[in-house]
Amino acid sequence: MAEAVGREIASQGAVLACGGLGGVMEAAAKGANEAGGEVLGVLPGPDKTHANPYVTIAVPTNMGHARNVIIAHTADALIAVEGEYGTLSEAAIACKLYKPVFVLPGGPQLAGTVAVSSPQEAVTLAFESMKL
Amino acid sequence: MAEAVGREIASQGAVLACGGLGGVMEAAAKGANEAGGEVLGVLPGPDKTHANPYVTIAVPTNMGHARNVIIAHTADALIAVEGEYGTLSEAAIACKLYKPVFVLPGGPQLAGTVAVSSPQEAVTLAFESMKL
Amino acid sequence: MAEAVGREIASQGAVLACGGLGGVMEAAAKGANEAGGEVLGVLPGPDKTHANPYVTIAVPTNMGHARNVIIAHTADALIAVEGEYGTLSEAAIACKLYKPVFVLPGGPQLAGTVAVSSPQEAVTLAFESMKL
Amino acid sequence: MAEAVGREIASQGAVLACGGLGGVMEAAAKGANEAGGEVLGVLPGPDKTHANPYVTIAVPTNMGHARNVIIAHTADALIAVEGEYGTLSEAAIACKLYKPVFVLPGGPQLAGTVAVSSPQEAVTLAFESMKL
Repeated sequence: MAEAVGREIASQGAVLACGGLGGVMEAAAKGANEAGGEVLGVLPGPDKTHANPYVTIAVPTNMGHARNVIIAHTADALIAVEGEYGTLSEAAIACKLYKPVFVLPGGPQLAGTVAVSSPQEAVTLAFESMKL
Repeated sequence: MAEAVGREIASQGAVLACGGLGGVMEAAAKGANEAGGEVLGVLPGPDKTHANPYVTIAVPTNMGHARNVIIAHTADALIAVEGEYGTLSEAAIACKLYKPVFVLPGGPQLAGTVAVSSPQEAVTLAFESMKL
Repeated sequence: MAEAVGREIASQGAVLACGGLGGVMEAAAKGANEAGGEVLGVLPGPDKTHANPYVTIAVPTNMGHARNVIIAHTADALIAVEGEYGTLSEAAIACKLYKPVFVLPGGPQLAGTVAVSSPQEAVTLAFESMKL
Repeated sequence: MAEAVGREIASQGAVLACGGLGGVMEAAAKGANEAGGEVLGVLPGPDKTHANPYVTIAVPTNMGHARNVIIAHTADALIAVEGEYGTLSEAAIACKLYKPVFVLPGGPQLAGTVAVSSPQEAVTLAFESMKL
């Protein structure tokens, strides 16, 4: 699902911003990269060596979980794929910043976010929200 | 309720760490300060002038919402009084850091936190968790 | 001089990372952008609207001067064009992180940095340092 | 010299804010603590365990060198005891924030700072600057 999100974002000509590490972040990065897109990895650690191989521009913040807040500021819209604490903190800050947050099945339950049922729907709605 | 939390923390000889601004933060700071306690205010802005008058040590981070992450690192235990996005992001990061989080009625619903029914219960359990 | 630095970096196929605002940052960004390069702007404020028009990827950190530290972590090598306090703080952190720092005439005087006399020399030495 | 700075600050009833680790930071903290003062340690790491034993309030920022910027925002005046890169970056940011910076022999050479010859002079001038 994350890979499809990345692929859709790249195919629309947008930059995927993510946390730059493994798991969901790597899957999304792979999808975007293989569709020819740019992948911004905002990393928690002090150097680039931990970025996954699909990141095209790495920003090692050395700020740990506070990099989630930087991602919330950086993104025009957020798509939450899973529901761990880090994702939840990011979604909560994004809501606080009045950014649209789209949540796929399995993502965090959070008032003020928009539930979507597929990566395609998430990306379509994200781009529509950016035109407003 | 926040004022009672601050008062209990101070009466146990501990430092209250909070966001240092108004509302719930100010109420907790007032409770702790008037009970003779130390109040650490970890502020989002660049200078001390926005700290509420009950803060005894102000740390103006100039890092906006990322200061929530600093508070999560600073606290030995967290007590959530209300359920806004900022509190939720802080509680989520605290859970990620394996800090105990106690949630009063009206606070954020979050798996891994401990629901409590009164400020006294919150503070008692917080101090017990710190002995472990 | 900043514009020439940006142009040289882009013509070598590298990404220019800078503070993303006006003045020297904008001149370097213009040079890189007009040579077809990617320009990463690590901004001090909370949103992208203050990025100069040559930035192709903006990261609004909302962390004020602390974004200088993020740039020092992000860059493989640093080129200092002028000698204001912000540049100096960035160069000092870069030295602390063992990153090579090249200083053009007018840049900060700082032990451990390498004085260079032209943008071309700065960029040539920067790329050589990255091969080590 | 650092210990004398800490002692003087505490004897004037002020809080010593420092980086909270060893070396110069620990010496200053020792001086302040043993004179009955409060010592704020703004730490680069994620937890309190690395604070020196003289810190009375620890703020583990988990932001590495960016915590220098937080200290510059927190202090009303800065006293530089030695001249390493970290101190220099902090002094530069403090100058940028228009905070007075007093430099003891051996500290960083930086335009806009005030050279002093003893801890007593540094602290006296620091307190005078705060009355302005």
